[in-house]
Amino acid sequence: MSNINPDAARLAAALQYAHDHQDQALEELKSLVRIPSISNDKSCKPEMERAAHWLIEQLQQLGFHKVQMFQTAGAPIVYAELLTAGPNKPTALIYGHYDVQPAEPLELWESLPFEPEVRGELLFGRGASDMKGQIVAVLAALNALAQTGDLPVNLKFLLEGEEEVGSPNLDAFIISHAELLSSDFVLNPDSGMVSQDHPTITYGLRGIAYFEIRVTGPDHDLHSGIFGGIVHNPAQVLCELIAGMHDAAGRVTLPGFYDQVRPLEDSERAELRRLPINEVYYRSQTGCSEFFGEEGYTLIERATARPTLEVNGLLSGFTGEGSKTVLPARAMAKISARLVPDQDPYEVQRQLSQYLHEHAPSTVRWEMTLHSAGYPSITDLDHFAIKAMQQALEDTWGSRPLVKREGGSIPVVASMQKHLGLESVLAGFSLPEDGAHAPNERLHLPTFERGVQALVRFFTYL
Amino acid sequence: MSNINPDAARLAAALQYAHDHQDQALEELKSLVRIPSISNDKSCKPEMERAAHWLIEQLQQLGFHKVQMFQTAGAPIVYAELLTAGPNKPTALIYGHYDVQPAEPLELWESLPFEPEVRGELLFGRGASDMKGQIVAVLAALNALAQTGDLPVNLKFLLEGEEEVGSPNLDAFIISHAELLSSDFVLNPDSGMVSQDHPTITYGLRGIAYFEIRVTGPDHDLHSGIFGGIVHNPAQVLCELIAGMHDAAGRVTLPGFYDQVRPLEDSERAELRRLPINEVYYRSQTGCSEFFGEEGYTLIERATARPTLEVNGLLSGFTGEGSKTVLPARAMAKISARLVPDQDPYEVQRQLSQYLHEHAPSTVRWEMTLHSAGYPSITDLDHFAIKAMQQALEDTWGSRPLVKREGGSIPVVASMQKHLGLESVLAGFSLPEDGAHAPNERLHLPTFERGVQALVRFFTYL
Repeated sequence: MSNINPDAARLAAALQYAHDHQDQALEELKSLVRIPSISNDKSCKPEMERAAHWLIEQLQQLGFHKVQMFQTAGAPIVYAELLTAGPNKPTALIYGHYDVQPAEPLELWESLPFEPEVRGELLFGRGASDMKGQIVAVLAALNALAQTGDLPVNLKFLLEGEEEVGSPNLDAFIISHAELLSSDFVLNPDSGMVSQDHPTITYGLRGIAYFEIRVTGPDHDLHSGIFGGIVHNPAQVLCELIAGMHDAAGRVTLPGFYDQVRPLEDSERAELRRLPINEVYYRSQTGCSEFFGEEGYTLIERATARPTLEVNGLLSGFTGEGSKTVLPARAMAKISARLVPDQDPYEVQRQLSQYLHEHAPSTVRWEMTLHSAGYPSITDLDHFAIKAMQQALEDTWGSRPLVKREGGSIPVVASMQKHLGLESVLAGFSLPEDGAHAPNERLHLPTFERGVQALVRFFTYL
Repeated sequence: MSNINPDAARLAAALQYAHDHQDQALEELKSLVRIPSISNDKSCKPEMERAAHWLIEQLQQLGFHKVQMFQTAGAPIVYAELLTAGPNKPTALIYGHYDVQPAEPLELWESLPFEPEVRGELLFGRGASDMKGQIVAVLAALNALAQTGDLPVNLKFLLEGEEEVGSPNLDAFIISHAELLSSDFVLNPDSGMVSQDHPTITYGLRGIAYFEIRVTGPDHDLHSGIFGGIVHNPAQVLCELIAGMHDAAGRVTLPGFYDQVRPLEDSERAELRRLPINEVYYRSQTGCSEFFGEEGYTLIERATARPTLEVNGLLSGFTGEGSKTVLPARAMAKISARLVPDQDPYEVQRQLSQYLHEHAPSTVRWEMTLHSAGYPSITDLDHFAIKAMQQALEDTWGSRPLVKREGGSIPVVASMQKHLGLESVLAGFSLPEDGAHAPNERLHLPTFERGVQALVRFFTYL
């Protein structure tokens, strides 16, 4: 179906239009970033509606039909379609999420997270990169095409507001609207580039299983002097449990954790070695001088193609300034595992539960909650839409794009494959230094503009 | 010097006066509890002054001379003396602290912590038991004696406002005011009873060394999907370090931790076995069904006569509701060791530092702070003031008091011994279930009244 040699004049007009209206795209992005659509914060419910309405208005202006807001148990889902390209053209289902991570710790932001501010070549603001900037890039590319001719492809949009909390209502929506969503492939720009000079297509994603573990000991906080030494301290127990979750070789000890892990083939390891992602790169991204991880694997293999288990949060007892001699009644940890094919998040839940049953002492009680679950996935690199994206990126950057696996989790990719039979083209324009999920999240504006240009080409090449 | 057979009529009059004015003592205590003198909270500085002024007013009304407020780098110290009993009578130096612990977590209080409320036989409020109630009991006993005759003993008061933060300015004051404070012994009611039926004299106290450990990894919070598996997670490292601080037998692993610990003699172990403090007792106080600790020692030995190391607080990463996929840049723990003779808190600081040097991986940086340090202590049971207190308690409760060691730390006891050569009579009227340092701290009012009666006798028997 792909059409890598389109009418050159028609393409040039769209690219020029996009270039001339880049400032307008930036202003639109700023207005979207101003909406604090934090899906994790219940008090932001009205902001989720505002963000959804903002998208609906944009899609209506673009001429989309059937622009609809579907209410869910959480944030609304926005659906829209424009099928004017006709049955001889493929249909792209464009996925995005309009929700953002919490902005805490607020004191580390140099400008307000929801007051977007351009400093030099960067736009600062929560969601600027992840992923409001990516959504606005797609809208800008489509607008450039629509303003300069007919749209070259049929389009559907599926925009959710709960990605940052694990998309609890998305699967049910996909399953119950399979016909509405039927398409030829998914374009998902919720992924990033290796660097601003390396356009990147991500073909493998890690899954996730995110847990909260709560350990309870005494029925109230105790004086650590009076009861210290006889009451098994829940904070100590939690630390011991967490310490036991990795062995000395950096491997995860949950029973059976590696049983379903697909071994890395030599050819894939060779491909991963070609990526410009090495210790120097990781140092610059993290500020770490030394790294850690599973023995026998390179850094990029550990970070993208091997499963991991991380502590995301710890809380117990007195955490204020100075000292308080408390023996805490409870301790809490947030822990998440990143999964690779063919691990199953619900199987990992069972493994963690078994680990806790086997290792938690009888002096305490414990409970665990699964906050979110997503399957790992791998996309077929021979798909026509992947090939169109490869060409679009090459024509924009002047070099062949990299293909890589990614350490993060985009569970919707696995859902689209499982429930709709659709492969995803994962190619967004965020950069590693954008600080997604961190204070001072930013978008690199020259890359944003190149992204719009690449998307104009991509839609034309389909 | 002791005078266990005083004028019976004079004693009876004072006891009767105290009994008749118990409601007045309660009202005074309530007015003191209403002052939120939280030494750990810098915003409470004016409240510290208010509490000190409240005490000064009470002491002036009692006829004390030289009632003085000494400013320190922290909260003021109140000093007062009344030496009218003459040179043939001993001088008691009464120690107390007017500061209280923070009230957090506020949501667990059933009434406001600084709005004292009587429910049944209990007075609820922060500091009601630890130790504003104990100070007011002493004042009420002295008032009863003063209103019914001459005071039978010379008196000095030393009331500080920083006990709950480790008394950082007290030692310097004691050293530089040694002559002012010269006395025959210290009465320190900042200790408790085994139960409401068991008046108790504490002759041994654990010391303390309270630390904060901060582990830092990457220079900012990272996305746990992108960097998980290669960056050594500071929360994981902290858990591993804490887990390694105890061995499988419940012993603390800091190098040399037990080297200076005085072994428990058989006679002392026999004495401790006589106390009505057993597993059933500890269950009722803690809600725990099973206990923990150092192999080879009974529960009361572990809790009072053996050193321990406890986690008092943990904080890292995301601790809100739901999930956030963060790989935290840092992790913090508050950790304190309880020490027994002849351990030295500064030696333990060195041991912890050595432990961290030996066990912290080079993938992270760490730092530790010593928040407070106090030496352990043991008091001579043959001291005349101890004997007077034993008799006073026996005459009030009708049974011989228990003598015990206590797990908590009262560093001032060691300071008084070291700098002034004074033994302390540690006998207060708090109960284990008072919830010192916990939400819903309370004072058992019948025990409070008995305490006043016992103190009237004690001062008379000296």
